[in-house]
Amino acid sequence: MQDRIAEVQQTIVASSAPSSVFGDLSWKRRREVFFTLPETAKERLVADMGRKQLRTFVRRLDPDEATDVLGYADEDLREAVIADLDADRRDKIEFLLSFDPESAAGLMDLDYVTVGADRHLSQAAERVQRFEERTDRVPTILVTDDERLLGELPGAALSLADSGAESVTDHVREIPQVRYDRDDSEVLDVFRENRQRTVAVLNEEDDVLGVIHADDLLTVIEENAGETLYEFTGVAEEESALDGPGAKVRNRYKWLIVNLGTAFLAAAVVGLFESTIASIAVLAAYMPVVAGMGGNAGTQAMAVTVRGISLGQVSLSTGRRVITNEVIAGAVNGIITGALVAVIAIAFSLAEFGVLLGAVIGVSMVANLVIAGFFGAIVPLVLDRFGQDPATSATIFITTATDVLGFFVFLGLARSVLL
Amino acid sequence: MQDRIAEVQQTIVASSAPSSVFGDLSWKRRREVFFTLPETAKERLVADMGRKQLRTFVRRLDPDEATDVLGYADEDLREAVIADLDADRRDKIEFLLSFDPESAAGLMDLDYVTVGADRHLSQAAERVQRFEERTDRVPTILVTDDERLLGELPGAALSLADSGAESVTDHVREIPQVRYDRDDSEVLDVFRENRQRTVAVLNEEDDVLGVIHADDLLTVIEENAGETLYEFTGVAEEESALDGPGAKVRNRYKWLIVNLGTAFLAAAVVGLFESTIASIAVLAAYMPVVAGMGGNAGTQAMAVTVRGISLGQVSLSTGRRVITNEVIAGAVNGIITGALVAVIAIAFSLAEFGVLLGAVIGVSMVANLVIAGFFGAIVPLVLDRFGQDPATSATIFITTATDVLGFFVFLGLARSVLL
Repeated sequence: MQDRIAEVQQTIVASSAPSSVFGDLSWKRRREVFFTLPETAKERLVADMGRKQLRTFVRRLDPDEATDVLGYADEDLREAVIADLDADRRDKIEFLLSFDPESAAGLMDLDYVTVGADRHLSQAAERVQRFEERTDRVPTILVTDDERLLGELPGAALSLADSGAESVTDHVREIPQVRYDRDDSEVLDVFRENRQRTVAVLNEEDDVLGVIHADDLLTVIEENAGETLYEFTGVAEEESALDGPGAKVRNRYKWLIVNLGTAFLAAAVVGLFESTIASIAVLAAYMPVVAGMGGNAGTQAMAVTVRGISLGQVSLSTGRRVITNEVIAGAVNGIITGALVAVIAIAFSLAEFGVLLGAVIGVSMVANLVIAGFFGAIVPLVLDRFGQDPATSATIFITTATDVLGFFVFLGLARSVLL
Repeated sequence: MQDRIAEVQQTIVASSAPSSVFGDLSWKRRREVFFTLPETAKERLVADMGRKQLRTFVRRLDPDEATDVLGYADEDLREAVIADLDADRRDKIEFLLSFDPESAAGLMDLDYVTVGADRHLSQAAERVQRFEERTDRVPTILVTDDERLLGELPGAALSLADSGAESVTDHVREIPQVRYDRDDSEVLDVFRENRQRTVAVLNEEDDVLGVIHADDLLTVIEENAGETLYEFTGVAEEESALDGPGAKVRNRYKWLIVNLGTAFLAAAVVGLFESTIASIAVLAAYMPVVAGMGGNAGTQAMAVTVRGISLGQVSLSTGRRVITNEVIAGAVNGIITGALVAVIAIAFSLAEFGVLLGAVIGVSMVANLVIAGFFGAIVPLVLDRFGQDPATSATIFITTATDVLGFFVFLGLARSVLL
């Protein structure tokens, strides 16, 4: 099943007429395929669909899904399709289209009804029935008192509707709230703290605009999950495995050029020791070992600190213990791996240098893993403190530190001890 | 709020008596704090809690949450606490504890009632009311016909219960199903394909065991999200930013030693060219540039391919286009960055080498970025094909390829052109 969807998606991406491939699918399959396509493919596909095909697809989607789809169409096409829909859908979609798709309002749907606190359960039941008849969907029931949101009425409470005159307020449950302009990730925090299934979206005047269900967040979290590795490696968020070479180059060359800058910093340090390397060329062979191990240890420390930050467990102001522990762990791992490298180096260079070359490499490894632990922990904490994403660009600073300082310690030590 | 929770968590992690810190919190705050603690801290905290404190905490949790908490207790403590609970909770928790916590059954809760297809809505309503009175929670209503699951009855349908003799089958909606022993990630696929809020969990005989709600998956996805960066950098899954240095060393040194092996491979290649470097020591300065750029480009290609695999967009059998595109993109990015490096190198070495050193570096960069694109795409696809996680250990193979082949091309070319 997953595999068949993947095949269809690849055909759509590769096709010069994606809409005809898409049109051959059943409506249900189209819905499955569309929402897991890469961003660029969604755009191309929607641009390739005619007004009629787009309308057929959109007409049966939930309004929030239809809004997502129409977000990819150009303005003329979008307005033409919306004009063809019935008045109720049209209003809902136009309302949803008016918000930032990456905000709380962009995540919400309109499957809710509001009921005044002075109403009886039977009146709430009536409203729910009318909503279902009109939309064929089950609404969340929100209870308001004079426009102010009191909470949610669980659907199952309507089972008591026939027992007479019970008021809706007897069954209201608290519902978490979020402002409509909040970022995706803040909505996620609200779900995490409250462990509930529905969150109400309010505007500045505390009027209800919509509701967000836990399942609306699944896609957001998955996208964020991919993003971490993307940010970490400097790939643009929207890139997909299915993109052509042009997009891949555009999305990545800038990051590579930035890295080039830092690589030249490391090269400059090595250049300072050119005469040392000319006399002891074997030092060049050990350079990638010292630098590589520092880079690896630094990204390990970074990965752990980034997760700690994203789970709210650590921040710069409370992070002193984390940094200290990373430095200690770096020293211990440096001693373990440094000893191994030293033994191997001594075995190869005993005749020429005795134990000295091994000792220089071993000590440099310890120093570089301490450097890695320190920068691996502090760089994401500082980036986070200044409102930057802790994963993006952290590696640049960390590997620059481990390369530049690592080469400096290693070659400096070699010059003073071995020459 | 987030910040206060983070502070409490750090105090708990650092404290030698975590249970007394935990005990000072309100029950509601305890619930918030516990479920976002790192694994090792949960274990330590539960081990430190007495029977009485654990019982007080567990008694008001939902059975599936209580099961998670008791999973951290040793057997004696767990049984003692369970024995203190009322019979209904005891049965539910013992039932849930019998399953693998990382399977569908480990995610499910028991907040459902089943209603026979031959029943009327009013009978379903009665059952829901009894469930709510007993548990104070709102159940999902599942409709079965002779033990076979037909689907879900939306709670709001109960609003029609008073209108007389309507049968439940008139209002049944399809509900996605999953077998109890399926992995977390397969459950996620089911939600992704069906875009619904609830999934039923069945055993081999198609009896209903429980239900999974979209919000139960939020934690799973978030953990998986962190895991990708962890696997990528070779950190053990359970490690947290708040762990002490001992755990950090234990969780990481093996990966560092594996990397040491690959670093020595690169060192061996450089060693082959020792005499070349002895005559032209400036080559050592450009080594980190060539290797570093290859490593960066390779992990970019890998990040994109890994996300494509996890979204089901690409596999080894369908991956030829992806690999070709990565190779082409590598060549183009190699030309862009290689030209930059060549110009700079020529500027510094014009007197000694003319344009030759620059040309060697530029060509090596193009070659190494092509190598990076090829291995960055094919390594995760092959790992995935053999049932391995595509992110774990992929970097080892990719950076080994870019280091070893990159140095070989660069130093080999330098020897034949410059000497």
